[in-house]
Amino acid sequence: MIPIGGVPLIQPGDDLVQMLLGRLRAAGDRLKTGDILVVTQKIVSKSEGSLVDLRSCRPSRQARHLARFTGKDPRLVELVLRESKKVLRHGPNLIVTEHRQGWVCANAGIDFSNVPGEEVTLLPRDSDHTARRMRRRIKALTGAEVAVLIVDSHGRPFRRGAVGVAIGTAGISALVNKRGARDLFRYRLRGTEIALADEVASAASLLMGQADEGIPAVILRGLNYPKGWAKALNLIRPEANDLFR
Amino acid sequence: MIPIGGVPLIQPGDDLVQMLLGRLRAAGDRLKTGDILVVTQKIVSKSEGSLVDLRSCRPSRQARHLARFTGKDPRLVELVLRESKKVLRHGPNLIVTEHRQGWVCANAGIDFSNVPGEEVTLLPRDSDHTARRMRRRIKALTGAEVAVLIVDSHGRPFRRGAVGVAIGTAGISALVNKRGARDLFRYRLRGTEIALADEVASAASLLMGQADEGIPAVILRGLNYPKGWAKALNLIRPEANDLFR
Repeated sequence: MIPIGGVPLIQPGDDLVQMLLGRLRAAGDRLKTGDILVVTQKIVSKSEGSLVDLRSCRPSRQARHLARFTGKDPRLVELVLRESKKVLRHGPNLIVTEHRQGWVCANAGIDFSNVPGEEVTLLPRDSDHTARRMRRRIKALTGAEVAVLIVDSHGRPFRRGAVGVAIGTAGISALVNKRGARDLFRYRLRGTEIALADEVASAASLLMGQADEGIPAVILRGLNYPKGWAKALNLIRPEANDLFR
Repeated sequence: MIPIGGVPLIQPGDDLVQMLLGRLRAAGDRLKTGDILVVTQKIVSKSEGSLVDLRSCRPSRQARHLARFTGKDPRLVELVLRESKKVLRHGPNLIVTEHRQGWVCANAGIDFSNVPGEEVTLLPRDSDHTARRMRRRIKALTGAEVAVLIVDSHGRPFRRGAVGVAIGTAGISALVNKRGARDLFRYRLRGTEIALADEVASAASLLMGQADEGIPAVILRGLNYPKGWAKALNLIRPEANDLFR
């Protein structure tokens, strides 16, 4: 695992791939075929201009109501509602929604942009698409065939603490089947499908974790992984199969 | 990340720490202060004799009923019920319970033992305790102050695929607080508590994933982590705070 640090604050329109390649060059390294490049949702959102100034945001009646109930900023709640298909749970200082792309997470993935003021980042419009675009651009600029992951940090039911998860992937299968034992009735005893992309996201988050803006990208080198069929959106469990939603 | 392979099939009573140190020595390496040693639940359970032969298991009426409903082996269901405080959800080929230690997972963490026959492994009786014991033994044998993690692979609601999670830890804080942005009302905008131990578990699982019995242990070297207060049991979200249980 190789951290890419020293990346300047990202502005809308910045060429993220060029900036990351530049930082790597400065560190005497470069992307190689087979590498997995993991980048935070936040720098992707910034470069794509998925930013909203809370001061521009007029809360609806529903947002003001939910804001009172949760103790959250009504303008933020307004944005959360706009970004979501539905509110799944709410409580003091907590709103869990189904984001319009399907992610189940707190605040529809909205986060502060780490710039002074009241700007927040929304999730990228289509992270799988962005990952594919970055992968193609890396191939064009360097010749290297890499995998690209866009990651966010989500809380979980049952377990305390957030962990890194994948919200966009390209060049790597987000899900893999593990050769699994079957029980005597020929059913699989344990879930044998592994969320490879989420494990990669969590691994990279170990390095990103401490320095929020400091380490916005990490390379995993030397891991064997299938290119496969599954993109990050396939990680979303269909509601019909989800016994806890 | 350094995989420890070539570990022989573990038998009850085997000295796991000695065997892993032996394999490391054979590979020309050794544990160093600051390393994180990650081991699978399965080899810990085997070395502790947490094994049950399904043929010794007589299903109760309740187990037979749940077995019919889920299509699972009634003897397995009997064990799942014995290992659990309560059944949270069930469906075709799925039983999610609260394990008696509190873990929410499929089949109470029971898995095939990978030996011919009908033997299954139960979760270790107290994985945090085992991790502490292993850590002390490593210190006594080598002088190195390491962290020890015992990991399993759990499914998630909302998201498809299982990921590596920690069920026992020693010498590392399972949870860490990330310096987080706060919203205008001085509430935290995003969950700023990170499940460090689960991220380490997922990272190590990337190497363990392909070869089920082949890579039962992985070393993470060079990561800065706090020793902290939280053990793996602290990762369990209290039911009162769990909006999805």
